[in-house]
Amino acid sequence: MPIAMPEPPSRSFASDNAAGAHPAVLEAVQRANHGHALAYGDDDHTRECERRFSELFGREVATFLTFNGTGANVMALTALVRPGDAVVCSDWAHINVDETGAPERVVGAKLIDLPTVDAKLTPDQIEHQAHAIGVPHHAQPAVVSLTQSTELGTVYTADEIGAICDAAHRLGMLVHLDGARIANAVASQGGTVATLRSMTVDAGVDVMTFGGTKNGMLGGEAVVFLRPELGARGHFVRKTVTQLPSKMRFVAAQFNALIEGDLWLDLALHANTMAATLHTGATGIAGVEIGPPPAVNSVFPILPGDAIDPLRAWCFFWEWDPERRQVRWMTAWDTTTQDVERFTNGVKAILAPRN
Amino acid sequence: MPIAMPEPPSRSFASDNAAGAHPAVLEAVQRANHGHALAYGDDDHTRECERRFSELFGREVATFLTFNGTGANVMALTALVRPGDAVVCSDWAHINVDETGAPERVVGAKLIDLPTVDAKLTPDQIEHQAHAIGVPHHAQPAVVSLTQSTELGTVYTADEIGAICDAAHRLGMLVHLDGARIANAVASQGGTVATLRSMTVDAGVDVMTFGGTKNGMLGGEAVVFLRPELGARGHFVRKTVTQLPSKMRFVAAQFNALIEGDLWLDLALHANTMAATLHTGATGIAGVEIGPPPAVNSVFPILPGDAIDPLRAWCFFWEWDPERRQVRWMTAWDTTTQDVERFTNGVKAILAPRN
Amino acid sequence: MPIAMPEPPSRSFASDNAAGAHPAVLEAVQRANHGHALAYGDDDHTRECERRFSELFGREVATFLTFNGTGANVMALTALVRPGDAVVCSDWAHINVDETGAPERVVGAKLIDLPTVDAKLTPDQIEHQAHAIGVPHHAQPAVVSLTQSTELGTVYTADEIGAICDAAHRLGMLVHLDGARIANAVASQGGTVATLRSMTVDAGVDVMTFGGTKNGMLGGEAVVFLRPELGARGHFVRKTVTQLPSKMRFVAAQFNALIEGDLWLDLALHANTMAATLHTGATGIAGVEIGPPPAVNSVFPILPGDAIDPLRAWCFFWEWDPERRQVRWMTAWDTTTQDVERFTNGVKAILAPRN
Amino acid sequence: MPIAMPEPPSRSFASDNAAGAHPAVLEAVQRANHGHALAYGDDDHTRECERRFSELFGREVATFLTFNGTGANVMALTALVRPGDAVVCSDWAHINVDETGAPERVVGAKLIDLPTVDAKLTPDQIEHQAHAIGVPHHAQPAVVSLTQSTELGTVYTADEIGAICDAAHRLGMLVHLDGARIANAVASQGGTVATLRSMTVDAGVDVMTFGGTKNGMLGGEAVVFLRPELGARGHFVRKTVTQLPSKMRFVAAQFNALIEGDLWLDLALHANTMAATLHTGATGIAGVEIGPPPAVNSVFPILPGDAIDPLRAWCFFWEWDPERRQVRWMTAWDTTTQDVERFTNGVKAILAPRN
Repeated sequence: MPIAMPEPPSRSFASDNAAGAHPAVLEAVQRANHGHALAYGDDDHTRECERRFSELFGREVATFLTFNGTGANVMALTALVRPGDAVVCSDWAHINVDETGAPERVVGAKLIDLPTVDAKLTPDQIEHQAHAIGVPHHAQPAVVSLTQSTELGTVYTADEIGAICDAAHRLGMLVHLDGARIANAVASQGGTVATLRSMTVDAGVDVMTFGGTKNGMLGGEAVVFLRPELGARGHFVRKTVTQLPSKMRFVAAQFNALIEGDLWLDLALHANTMAATLHTGATGIAGVEIGPPPAVNSVFPILPGDAIDPLRAWCFFWEWDPERRQVRWMTAWDTTTQDVERFTNGVKAILAPRN
Repeated sequence: MPIAMPEPPSRSFASDNAAGAHPAVLEAVQRANHGHALAYGDDDHTRECERRFSELFGREVATFLTFNGTGANVMALTALVRPGDAVVCSDWAHINVDETGAPERVVGAKLIDLPTVDAKLTPDQIEHQAHAIGVPHHAQPAVVSLTQSTELGTVYTADEIGAICDAAHRLGMLVHLDGARIANAVASQGGTVATLRSMTVDAGVDVMTFGGTKNGMLGGEAVVFLRPELGARGHFVRKTVTQLPSKMRFVAAQFNALIEGDLWLDLALHANTMAATLHTGATGIAGVEIGPPPAVNSVFPILPGDAIDPLRAWCFFWEWDPERRQVRWMTAWDTTTQDVERFTNGVKAILAPRN
Repeated sequence: MPIAMPEPPSRSFASDNAAGAHPAVLEAVQRANHGHALAYGDDDHTRECERRFSELFGREVATFLTFNGTGANVMALTALVRPGDAVVCSDWAHINVDETGAPERVVGAKLIDLPTVDAKLTPDQIEHQAHAIGVPHHAQPAVVSLTQSTELGTVYTADEIGAICDAAHRLGMLVHLDGARIANAVASQGGTVATLRSMTVDAGVDVMTFGGTKNGMLGGEAVVFLRPELGARGHFVRKTVTQLPSKMRFVAAQFNALIEGDLWLDLALHANTMAATLHTGATGIAGVEIGPPPAVNSVFPILPGDAIDPLRAWCFFWEWDPERRQVRWMTAWDTTTQDVERFTNGVKAILAPRN
Repeated sequence: MPIAMPEPPSRSFASDNAAGAHPAVLEAVQRANHGHALAYGDDDHTRECERRFSELFGREVATFLTFNGTGANVMALTALVRPGDAVVCSDWAHINVDETGAPERVVGAKLIDLPTVDAKLTPDQIEHQAHAIGVPHHAQPAVVSLTQSTELGTVYTADEIGAICDAAHRLGMLVHLDGARIANAVASQGGTVATLRSMTVDAGVDVMTFGGTKNGMLGGEAVVFLRPELGARGHFVRKTVTQLPSKMRFVAAQFNALIEGDLWLDLALHANTMAATLHTGATGIAGVEIGPPPAVNSVFPILPGDAIDPLRAWCFFWEWDPERRQVRWMTAWDTTTQDVERFTNGVKAILAPRN
């Protein structure tokens, strides 16, 4: 007998990039849509955006707006590597798993992906790269790439990032941070601008991406050279990797709205809170191995195999590790408590017959 | 004695990408900003957009939405070329002059740029490539890339494109059309959907880009494989060249607004008409060599050298060929007759003292 | 008190590429050095060489002579992959570890390196790639790259290669075999031309490299498309990856000498035999963990840490895994029994004081 | 009635790369073929070769041996350019016409090929690149690439090269010299080591290739960083572009033989002299437009169209510009006066019936 399912949530738990844009972001785009403005960044919105990023990091940084996360990573890495160089990353890294070889093709660099349990590199792993340095037969470890928060929903502490940066710098390597979800990481570790600085510029990160798309924008990411001299040729690099927005004011205006009043932190904190609520709500449902409380905005439960498909058909989410029957429930800036309640009720309904 | 200048136009004559988005485009984005939608094109807006493009071309085409013109060209060419291949283009081609080597770097192909007077290739030039075909020391001419309308504001007739396609196909080459301003070309040659088809799919073009950014969108271009089998691997190609939009519904919604009711044609026709009006208005002003009437939305006059800077300071436009004192005045979808009148008056004011 | 060391061997145990050229190879070069011959392969020696390779494999193959092993691998892979594709290999693969990112840079493809204990991939590992196929976010597993014999001196059986080829082909993937030391593998598994065919063309390998440099040549490798249609564009591919020899007759003549009378098999068998002799000779020396008998021409013993440096100073070899104190002793086509005896005596002399 | 042709020359006039190796070169290879030597350049022959090149240029240079001309050019350029950079060259440049897009693919840079009458760039052309510098939409002119002697058999004077280097350096550009036939150029301009220095290191060239293959070697080219700091990462660059020879001693030994006693100059002078002799011998043959005396080792006559094929069938040479009926007769280090006489007689015999 089919299970009578309750009303599904208004929003899926598929991904934070399934959410739309925050009203303030859209209003900013509308306001920016007035008259003419020179293309390619020679406009007031972009200049404001660049100034805002320097203020955010408490020092002069070199900011380059781009379209998407893969493009932002590719631009940042292209600016750093030389022929024969390699980028060291976690085996779970987005650049390694989810960018269809764009880093190799466009950057022209080898990725050295190291095994990690929770998608977090350790200083030891960086130090171990010393064996290859100076050997002409090995791609030269030149950049460490971290993701914060990681692809598994874990978070580096500021100290952990600092230790990795120290290890990298001792070997003459640079540090790139993929911050597609930096806001969620900051929200989870203190939630202030000071938190952001502590885990990036103060920790020694050389260049980072600052995600907008997954945190309430229509689309747009920023490449921020925390050591601005590394971005000296950024204008040429961005264009040669196809990531120069034409009507840049519209990307800039979105970021300006996000940075204004720390909206970026509010939205990420909300998404994180919704994931914590979901975790709490699903804890104790018989048949759900809910796992540890989420650090950011995703929960990775293990479900009975035959419950997954009907639950996804009712309210969509992604499978994560089919062999382990692990799935990912991800919240977004616009997830509501009602969405979480309804979703929890649906999980209970699916699992009830077997309990 | 300084010249007393009249009130400047509300909008510059710098470029069509200095214009903002058309209200219908922005409304479409707002309407699409409702609830959740899966990312990367698995959404209703994108499916509608793909369907609309097939309707537009009167046959099943394979459409891939991308961010910008350089990215769209790079994606299209990457899908076509093989190792050792070359792309034949005009020396004025955007891919040759204005993309900072992105085609070479990301596509990995040589560009063979041929001399052209008016930025238009001829069938003879294509046929001449035969000498290289099959010679292992020469990059193999594999793709002809046309721009319509061209970087010099000229337009190929449908017959001219057909003749180039025939020449290319006889040599086993494919034809790419950079349609960043295809709308302006269509508007100038008949202004109907049939006109579009006659100069693209009917003429034998294999893949084209269909510009949105310069014609009233916030940003977005479409790569359209008119022979859809050439786009069979397009999903992988688009991602590996960093051109996969995350929240694709917002790009799709813009195109849907542009295609709905042939708005794309109305906007382009308006821009063209404004250029014609400007040409008429500036004709006969002593000191202005106005040149031939514009085919599309740009006028390329020659001005007295000392008039250029003060005129640009008053209302911005770009220099085109400083050695010849040639400048470019470009209109956009939102240029008004008042803008044109004011601009013409300014030109007269600048030049009056010398007459 | 320093150890009185016996007379060292005439030849080191560093590598088979530390050996010179076999006399027959050098004589062939001399004979080929007569009069003029067109460059780039349009000469009788090259035509003979291409014919010889087809005879060797018992079918029409497409052979392309190249300079070196990295270049040969890069050429072969460039001919196979398309944009967005990945090459699956062992974590020990030469293309992954010892080619300084040339595959990523020049081929433009991602390497997916899988963990292996003995540098040998398994069919299961190939089958597991199915999860990525068709997903636009993942580089598409398109080629499996095997090394035979492997970088760890192990050998695939013909059946093992066949099973991998079957798994790959079922998924639509192609199989590349890095045969820099194919001769040693063949010598170890039967030592006939039939053995070669059984582990390559009969097993389903699509393209392979056939090593000459490590087996008695001055330098030169062959890329052999066992399915010749895959090499249809090989002339262009070879040139665009910089691997087209100018005076090709001199590379061809070397291969012709190697293939004539199965010299390639004799040389490899000899090197293998010398490694076996060395293994036997060093077995039982107290302090030496000699490991299993060699499959091909290398022994990987573990030595006391303080014995390694003085032994290397006396007769050079490479460290393999410093953390485990493992070294590599490699024999070559010209290693003599006297070399082995002297070397064994030296090992005994170094270790004696501690026994 | 068919023409009774005299006995053909022993050697064709196809190319200097159709010649074999000079006996001294081959003897050097044989002498180097003794015992073991570490691969990849850690051997005495290579060290000697590096020392010899520094002596040749009268200063410490950084020398990297490579396989072939395309590979040497690609290695040198890869060491110089950064993302978004372009290489400026003549439209006749080997890198532009005869390397199948290897520079674009492997270097990842755009080539800006400028029109030249005689394959020689001028300082004016370099200065004109200033317009693009600093503009993010244009590939940045970063390297000027000259060929000496050129693809059309012309030669730059030392002063001409100096003027180009000055123009380039004033714009912050570097200068690469493709010296595949540098020996012929030196022989034509004075023929001493001082001549070499005057047109390279003294003129301001930053990096050059020094050709061996076309001047009596089996094969091999040297990349010489005249400013050695530009080659600081050369070991990694050479490997990542697949140009690291394994048994490098055999390339080094060839160069050592060529440099010893200035053999490289003798061979080039001889080839040049044979071309001059051929030019003299063919001057005045009715029907032959012999053109100006050769600067180096090639003559570019214009012949009656129907004489070309039978003459090539009798003694091979390449057509150069079929539309103009221009062919290329090229001499080599081993061309004899008898070869020249016989060839001249053949030309007379072919043309006699029509006179």
